[in-house]
This record gives sequence, structure tokens and C-alpha cells, in this order.
Amino acid sequence: MDPDAVAKAFVEHYYSTFDANRANLGNLYQETSMLTFEGQKIQGSASIVSKLTSLPFQQCQHSITTVDCQPSGPAGGMLVFVSGNLQLAGEQHALKFSQMFHLMPTPQGSFYVLNDIFRLNYA
Amino acid sequence: MDPDAVAKAFVEHYYSTFDANRANLGNLYQETSMLTFEGQKIQGSASIVSKLTSLPFQQCQHSITTVDCQPSGPAGGMLVFVSGNLQLAGEQHALKFSQMFHLMPTPQGSFYVLNDIFRLNYA
Repeated sequence: MDPDAVAKAFVEHYYSTFDANRANLGNLYQETSMLTFEGQKIQGSASIVSKLTSLPFQQCQHSITTVDCQPSGPAGGMLVFVSGNLQLAGEQHALKFSQMFHLMPTPQGSFYVLNDIFRLNYA
Repeated sequence: MDPDAVAKAFVEHYYSTFDANRANLGNLYQETSMLTFEGQKIQGSASIVSKLTSLPFQQCQHSITTVDCQPSGPAGGMLVFVSGNLQLAGEQHALKFSQMFHLMPTPQGSFYVLNDIFRLNYA
């Protein structure tokens, strides 16, 4: 497996799902998963989806600027670090953001998100 | 141990050491440590210090805007996600950056940096 290819595929899947229907992101998280969104800490797939679907905007479009990845240790995890722009419908300017994911392998040979930290980068 | 307090103490130590004398950062890394610096991948404490000390500026000053942290799994690691500004001597404008660290516990009860990913956030 090429970690960079896995990271790129994950990032494309994650943000295209987010922009199409955020409610479908739930199966990427598990009960132990953690999201820190602009400093707010949320745990568990259901609570994370509830947070993401209650964000105060409907349509949005992520465009990715950089994707970096590294293996996170002997457990087979992978760290994915993303920077990009978030365009909200009706807003003139895109918002810059940075986000990191810690992906952990599942017994089925896929990955789930154990850690997710999101921050807007204010100019 | 309060993870947020550990993360904050690490961040203060890391950037004050970076700004005072980058060569002293070597003892925070080990041979398995990875740095991805603006997309360039470097492994091992000596190579990481060599990269950091060869950056094309002498004096710099980091100011931290946000620090987020999460436990990274059963091995006792901790993810630290930082955003801030980097002021280089002689430059008018500070550069915005995002950086993540994966800290792993040492047998001595401290932490070392297993993963380090750094990106400038261009406006």
C-alpha cells in the first residue's frame, strides 16, 4: 500500500462526501473517534455527525491545497494533514482551513477516523 | 496528567527552543521520528536538526494562535495541532503556519516527537 495514495483517496472521499451530504460521514467514525472543531471537543460517530450537520451553512465546497501523510506508529495508523479553502454558498470569499486526521486500520482492511482536528486559518 | 496542559507546555518549550537555538531541538526527536516540512520528508533526529538549522533565516519568532490536542490511542501518544505566526527578522509581514506533532511517551515519563508536519498557510 502506498500511504500517499491512501491519504489522497481518503481526502477526496471525505471532502466530496462532506460537500454532497455531511450526514454520510458517520461511517468513517467510530464510538472512540474524537473531533475537535474550532476548539470544541466532540466524541463518537453520532455526536460528530450531529455537529457536522448542524454547522450554520448548507451548501459548501472544499478545495484542497496540500495533503501530507506519515505512518503514526506500529498499530498501522496514518496521519493525514490537509490545508485548503472552504467556499460557503452566498459568501464572497473562501475561508482557509487546516485539518488533521488520524486514520486507523479496521479488521476489514479499511480505515476509520480516530482523531480529527479542524481549524479555520483567519487572515 | 492533563493532556491540554502537557500540550501547552510542549508547544511553549518547542517554539521557545526553536527561536533561541534550533540545534537544541534534537533531543525531542528519535531515530524513528519523521518530519514533513513543506512537503519534504525527513527521518531521524540528526537529519531533522540538520534541516531545521539549514532553513534560510537566522532569527525568528513564533507566536501561537491555537493549540488543540487529543490522545492518539492506547499507546499513550498525543496529537498536538498548532496554528500561529512566524516572524522572520527583517521581514515586514509574519507568515501564517500550521503544524502538527504526534508525541509518544518515553520510558522516562517524558515525550518525544514521532511525527511532525509543518506547512505555511499562504494568504
